[in-house]
Amino acid sequence: MKPMCELMEECVKAAQINVCEALTAINGKTFQPHPWTSNTLQGGGIANIFTDGLLLEKGGVNISTVRGKVFGEMTKMLSMDQQLDPDKYKYFATGLSLVLHPHSPYVPTIHANYRYFEIEDEKGQLVSWFFGGGTDLTPYYLFEEDAIHFHRTLKDACDKTEVGLYEKLKKEADEYFYLPHRKEHRGIGGIFSLRMQDRPADQIYQWVQNCSQAITHGYLPIVKKRIHEPYGEFQKKWQMIRRGRYVEFNLLHDIGTQFGLKSGGHVENILMSLPPTVSWEFNFHPQPGTPEEKLLAIIKNPKEWA
Amino acid sequence: MKPMCELMEECVKAAQINVCEALTAINGKTFQPHPWTSNTLQGGGIANIFTDGLLLEKGGVNISTVRGKVFGEMTKMLSMDQQLDPDKYKYFATGLSLVLHPHSPYVPTIHANYRYFEIEDEKGQLVSWFFGGGTDLTPYYLFEEDAIHFHRTLKDACDKTEVGLYEKLKKEADEYFYLPHRKEHRGIGGIFSLRMQDRPADQIYQWVQNCSQAITHGYLPIVKKRIHEPYGEFQKKWQMIRRGRYVEFNLLHDIGTQFGLKSGGHVENILMSLPPTVSWEFNFHPQPGTPEEKLLAIIKNPKEWA
Repeated sequence: MKPMCELMEECVKAAQINVCEALTAINGKTFQPHPWTSNTLQGGGIANIFTDGLLLEKGGVNISTVRGKVFGEMTKMLSMDQQLDPDKYKYFATGLSLVLHPHSPYVPTIHANYRYFEIEDEKGQLVSWFFGGGTDLTPYYLFEEDAIHFHRTLKDACDKTEVGLYEKLKKEADEYFYLPHRKEHRGIGGIFSLRMQDRPADQIYQWVQNCSQAITHGYLPIVKKRIHEPYGEFQKKWQMIRRGRYVEFNLLHDIGTQFGLKSGGHVENILMSLPPTVSWEFNFHPQPGTPEEKLLAIIKNPKEWA
Repeated sequence: MKPMCELMEECVKAAQINVCEALTAINGKTFQPHPWTSNTLQGGGIANIFTDGLLLEKGGVNISTVRGKVFGEMTKMLSMDQQLDPDKYKYFATGLSLVLHPHSPYVPTIHANYRYFEIEDEKGQLVSWFFGGGTDLTPYYLFEEDAIHFHRTLKDACDKTEVGLYEKLKKEADEYFYLPHRKEHRGIGGIFSLRMQDRPADQIYQWVQNCSQAITHGYLPIVKKRIHEPYGEFQKKWQMIRRGRYVEFNLLHDIGTQFGLKSGGHVENILMSLPPTVSWEFNFHPQPGTPEEKLLAIIKNPKEWA
């Protein structure tokens, strides 16, 4: 069998192609591929960037494979057990990362990221490995049937590995995608694991494959249902204000973003996650009883959907 | 003589009134005062918020006075000499903080913040004090005469305390207002000190008074010169993209923002610094020889203006 680093590199490449084909079909306008390489990081990737199509105001479906020296903050960021000497240890990382920002405030933003790390010592011996990531949804308006569909798709994907895994990863997603200063979650969550190494690597690899296939199955039916719903200026304004929270989470808390920036990754690709147009309005609160307030209620108190 | 905590509280109150009067005269629309109090922080403040006037798309001129337990990250954030036990030490902080985001991309964004800290022990004995802050300018287009005027005003204010002080604080501003991931400075700088305690408190207090008077003297002549210059969609788009960098700096690096959020300050008042409308466009680079590129060149390599 091929080593896991190769298998995962092939897996994220295939997932990028599949997701981008499915998106192009619905977006009516294809993406621009932006390949990049880095000498310092011994590697590179391809950022497939969507701009201004029928569905997307902006979107990125990126893959990368890099090798570099372990750095001080890395062990802390990834909650690794031991502090590793940067002069002795190197990491290998490969992953898929996608964020889609639709035009319509009735279509949610989706984020998915699946990654695989290996740590090796001076002799090139593998000393540690782990997977990480997940998929989560950030709606601007709450449609309960959409939330149920999205979470059930993730539960089905996780159940193939182990019954109970979805519940564990749903809880971790609710904890991770949280803005303490706002006492709000980023959206309606999904599944997430910062470091997954609790079972044989080939089982987690199967889980990654199932979950990457679930991205389009979870998202595109929602898109098709909501994309033609008309909206007005106020709904767009609300979306732009909520997108501000997305920026706050990504810059203040997201470990993927911080890891990327600290490790010297490609800045434009890392920050492709930031929305195309955003607004910060002082002290904006939706009126009681409105659809906007209904979303806030669920974002302050996550519930079980699947 | 009154204790410094009282003097500084009065000083920031007076500065808020002066700046807001001068701004209202030019903005054609006055501000909304938002007073707030906090039980956990034993204190509060007033956020004066400007929205949608002749000059400002959004602006905040805030003051606050709070008392709280020293917290773990506080000593690190403020580069304090010693780690202080949170159960034994309390801090007092009072300050003025303003950020003005004009409609016109030809009028720069200004930020100023002047603050005073005291640390006291269990017995209420003063064990340490320091001032901090500064004033800096973030233009979207470079007008050299404006940059010279702005920096000369700051130099004049600093020269009253000590010749050479401006040069020292200008250097610290260039180092502080820096986005390492972009290899860019936030704007054309100004003056800044994270912790100023290198001379008697009453001298620094005089410096704060001189510098807070210099805010309007440095900024308003530039406003008056540029406010009526017509601009188009492209100039506005450029401003919104550059505002994205402002957000990146404030959320990823600004110690004032992080201190506010970690200490449990008023979220809306802390984040009033974020621009009203912002844009992130993938891989946007201005064309060579354009005014946009001229700004970038100066932002990558700060120069001496005064």
